[in-house]
Amino acid sequence: MAKPEKVEIVEVGPRDGLQNLQFYVETGKKVQLIRLLAESGIRAIEATSFVHPRAIPQFRDAAETIAGIKGLPGVKIIALVPNLVGAQRALAAGVQEISFVFSISASHNRNNVNKTPGESLEELRQIFELPGMGTRWMIRVNLATSFGCPFEGILPDERVYDYVDEVVDMGAKDIALADTVGYGNPAQVRRIVSNCLKRYPERHFIIHLHNTRGLGLANALAAYEAGLRTFDSAIGGLGGCPYAPGATGNISTEDLVFMFEGMGVKTGIRFPELFKAGQYLREIVPGVELSSGVLKAGLPKGILAA
Amino acid sequence: MAKPEKVEIVEVGPRDGLQNLQFYVETGKKVQLIRLLAESGIRAIEATSFVHPRAIPQFRDAAETIAGIKGLPGVKIIALVPNLVGAQRALAAGVQEISFVFSISASHNRNNVNKTPGESLEELRQIFELPGMGTRWMIRVNLATSFGCPFEGILPDERVYDYVDEVVDMGAKDIALADTVGYGNPAQVRRIVSNCLKRYPERHFIIHLHNTRGLGLANALAAYEAGLRTFDSAIGGLGGCPYAPGATGNISTEDLVFMFEGMGVKTGIRFPELFKAGQYLREIVPGVELSSGVLKAGLPKGILAA
Repeated sequence: MAKPEKVEIVEVGPRDGLQNLQFYVETGKKVQLIRLLAESGIRAIEATSFVHPRAIPQFRDAAETIAGIKGLPGVKIIALVPNLVGAQRALAAGVQEISFVFSISASHNRNNVNKTPGESLEELRQIFELPGMGTRWMIRVNLATSFGCPFEGILPDERVYDYVDEVVDMGAKDIALADTVGYGNPAQVRRIVSNCLKRYPERHFIIHLHNTRGLGLANALAAYEAGLRTFDSAIGGLGGCPYAPGATGNISTEDLVFMFEGMGVKTGIRFPELFKAGQYLREIVPGVELSSGVLKAGLPKGILAA
Repeated sequence: MAKPEKVEIVEVGPRDGLQNLQFYVETGKKVQLIRLLAESGIRAIEATSFVHPRAIPQFRDAAETIAGIKGLPGVKIIALVPNLVGAQRALAAGVQEISFVFSISASHNRNNVNKTPGESLEELRQIFELPGMGTRWMIRVNLATSFGCPFEGILPDERVYDYVDEVVDMGAKDIALADTVGYGNPAQVRRIVSNCLKRYPERHFIIHLHNTRGLGLANALAAYEAGLRTFDSAIGGLGGCPYAPGATGNISTEDLVFMFEGMGVKTGIRFPELFKAGQYLREIVPGVELSSGVLKAGLPKGILAA
């Protein structure tokens, strides 16, 4: 195992977690959740999604959410966007980083954003040309279904590398490999992450894992051992999968922090405040099961409690 | 990562899983569950526990359960025992392997079996002297709370090694390191497992993991990478923790098999039959949440389905 050091955790609960809910969470509650998350020491938060309100009504208040959290000290606010229009709305609202998503599986991209991957890449090219890129705002590119697609199954690794090449050519510096539906296993994650880091050592790779089949933390460990240091996770393990009712969502921030801090790897995140955010999440999503083991069971006696 | 090869999975659901239920499961249902598990290709099953019926009423039918599954072809039937009397009852009932458990934490051992670790070791010594040891029957020794105790927190690694030394001196060949309450993290698991394998390369080490805080599969991966090849797990992820209501139990057999087979490591277990056992478990423990991700979400498209 690599020498323990530090990792960065990007909290995606306010976006990927809330996205799958069957009910609307008021803007004020979203804002308060994000504020509590920031108080735990989290330094990057995917706060909302600038999608068409008909596609995901939960985020019809995207601009208001961003307005509500302006000026959170030391926290990078990220917003998901599926297209150029979304990017323009996000930038107008004042986000510092947009997170562009497309699927490397054509059928999943069609299902998700109603485009071919090529059409998505064309939108991405136009986003890269918007004024202020790299100065007033940054862009992160998410390759969804990098570890498998609910329609096409596991895709060839080369498909991932080909799309990484394409987005690197456009200028992408931050690239997230997403296990959108929880298909990945540690050997596959290690192999794909290692190859990406070897191919582009000067780029910043992120991994976005779901715990759909229970392997989320094992996959995070494999990515860490392969040298990756930035991880998406969601408070409470909120989130789900539209293709698997009742299935677990994103890997849980609490469990991920517990794993890394237990291993002596610093996350910069404090548990007492993280638990406050988790408790607040429970209040605002009543009846929704939160899968985080640490949130349910608490921390081990004498560990990280202070 | 070590070259992919094969692992042995010991199914402990009928014992550790059923142990935490608030209701009694009839003997015939236990027997049927064990038969279905055997049909999936599982070759070792911890079937019951020979404890005092007042301590765990669920296993008042231990002898009848063993009688009901006699002659399952190719399957090693294991029974948990906490003391000499339990061992004698188990052997009289015809089990091939007894699994003796004690905690390396004095307070947990007191709470669990009302003995000091020294008193438990004395019982173990007497069990080793029973006629037929190593010929008609085998013994496996479980070191509970090896990765932490709910009363004493994380214990010094040396405590584990000291007790391993003691049981090896008595003649133990099969030794299970148990993360009884889900305290372990991958760095700790890797370190302790590595040291045990290095110290006693000719002994057979097993790991028993709980997923209480979501790290179960990550810890299994760490143990595998450290060279360990035998893993306990429970169908459906059944089981819980008396100290954490609602907490997840043992690592799930389905998720563990999915992880290893996905990595190209052979388990000898077939999913269609394993799902039948999981479905049957659902029927006989109505209202109990089964935490297995694979059981909830199904296998990925095109993977291991045949």
